[in-house]
Amino acid sequence: MRLVRYRLGGQTRRGAVVGELVHELSDGVPGRVAGTLGDVQLLAPCEPRVIVCAGSNYADQIAEKGRPWPDRPSLFLKAPNAIVGPGAEILRPVEVRRLEYEGELAVVVGRTARGVRADRAADFVLGYTCANDVTAHDWRADGQWTRAKSADTFCPLGPWIETEPPDPPAMRITTRRRGEVVQRGSVADMVFGIGELLAFVTRWITLEPGDVLLTGSPAGVGPMAPGDDVEVEISGIGTLRNVVAERP
Amino acid sequence: MRLVRYRLGGQTRRGAVVGELVHELSDGVPGRVAGTLGDVQLLAPCEPRVIVCAGSNYADQIAEKGRPWPDRPSLFLKAPNAIVGPGAEILRPVEVRRLEYEGELAVVVGRTARGVRADRAADFVLGYTCANDVTAHDWRADGQWTRAKSADTFCPLGPWIETEPPDPPAMRITTRRRGEVVQRGSVADMVFGIGELLAFVTRWITLEPGDVLLTGSPAGVGPMAPGDDVEVEISGIGTLRNVVAERP
Repeated sequence: MRLVRYRLGGQTRRGAVVGELVHELSDGVPGRVAGTLGDVQLLAPCEPRVIVCAGSNYADQIAEKGRPWPDRPSLFLKAPNAIVGPGAEILRPVEVRRLEYEGELAVVVGRTARGVRADRAADFVLGYTCANDVTAHDWRADGQWTRAKSADTFCPLGPWIETEPPDPPAMRITTRRRGEVVQRGSVADMVFGIGELLAFVTRWITLEPGDVLLTGSPAGVGPMAPGDDVEVEISGIGTLRNVVAERP
Repeated sequence: MRLVRYRLGGQTRRGAVVGELVHELSDGVPGRVAGTLGDVQLLAPCEPRVIVCAGSNYADQIAEKGRPWPDRPSLFLKAPNAIVGPGAEILRPVEVRRLEYEGELAVVVGRTARGVRADRAADFVLGYTCANDVTAHDWRADGQWTRAKSADTFCPLGPWIETEPPDPPAMRITTRRRGEVVQRGSVADMVFGIGELLAFVTRWITLEPGDVLLTGSPAGVGPMAPGDDVEVEISGIGTLRNVVAERP
């Protein structure tokens, strides 16, 4: 099922997308048709309080950057103010010269996850969506990446939560900038798989339903500028598209 | 007014404390008495999605650590899973050898704060509470302080939000470990004041009602161990007390 949050007629609702139709959710199953995808404004499909992210988690990206092979996951946070939905603008602050896209698979937690075992992680996953881990490269020099990773609009999520995706290793991530492919990766190339990441995180950080784990970006991270449209497509899930603009 | 969240009879409610009595809130003003402070379990007084924190923000702490004088605020995040209330246990993970207290003044945001001017910051503040910015010293070496600052129970807040405190520069912070004073600071010694911090943060990070800004810790940060009780007292606000235990 493809779970969405959407706005229609001034109201925010949860629904499910079947083909081009958006259904209201009734007891967790698709009910009445609210409209077509063209009728509604899709929002980020969940409302996490915790967004925990793995850095340097793709073999090809580690090779590209010449980083050492990690012996454990490297974690950082994004703050919820950064979340925007599909179609929303990514705003580049005037102080930032180099704003970067990072296409990523996002795991949405389905139930309280604490001390999860790697081989049981699937029990705690509601589904998957696409993320763009927008980064202000200039601000990485801050040390802690608070501004670099969590400025408003720096966490596009969507278009929906796919609850019955292909097996994660079979998923492919493709990022396009102005229609040109700039990242092409396979979830099979993660250094730490989803189970290992969830086990590592939840040993200390309890995740609640709706919380999100970003699993890292493959090689090809690069700049984006106002006017660019940027798409993160994950096979078997969907495509998240946003456009970059100047922050007013 | 002293705003609280509390549990009583299996329910979570908002209220106001007057003397030793906890009143229910009725249209934002204290109504019926729910019980005494001894009858209820106080919870963290707000439910932030964003907890943004200033590091190295006290002159005496910068001198103590031999750090360079900062030319701008240094920000990091704590994640909401870390929040606990007054009286709750601070849990030390088994992997952590040195767990540290950091007594801090916490600013609770009262309305959507974006692009706030330093001289208008007070308009965006609901009130103030006490925080313990619990830190796993061992995990600072991770680079990003995700585990170091955001493990479960690493953000005690409380006991209440004081909405009519003394002028912040007049507030004094006193941290006690096992009854012994280990930190004694004055909010007047902040490098960047509350207005400057809120202006810096909200230039990029929009804060919503209930979000929290931690304003840094004075000199004297040090270790705490299972069995220790740790109090953060701020004059004109109150005292936040927690006890350290081993994480099971």
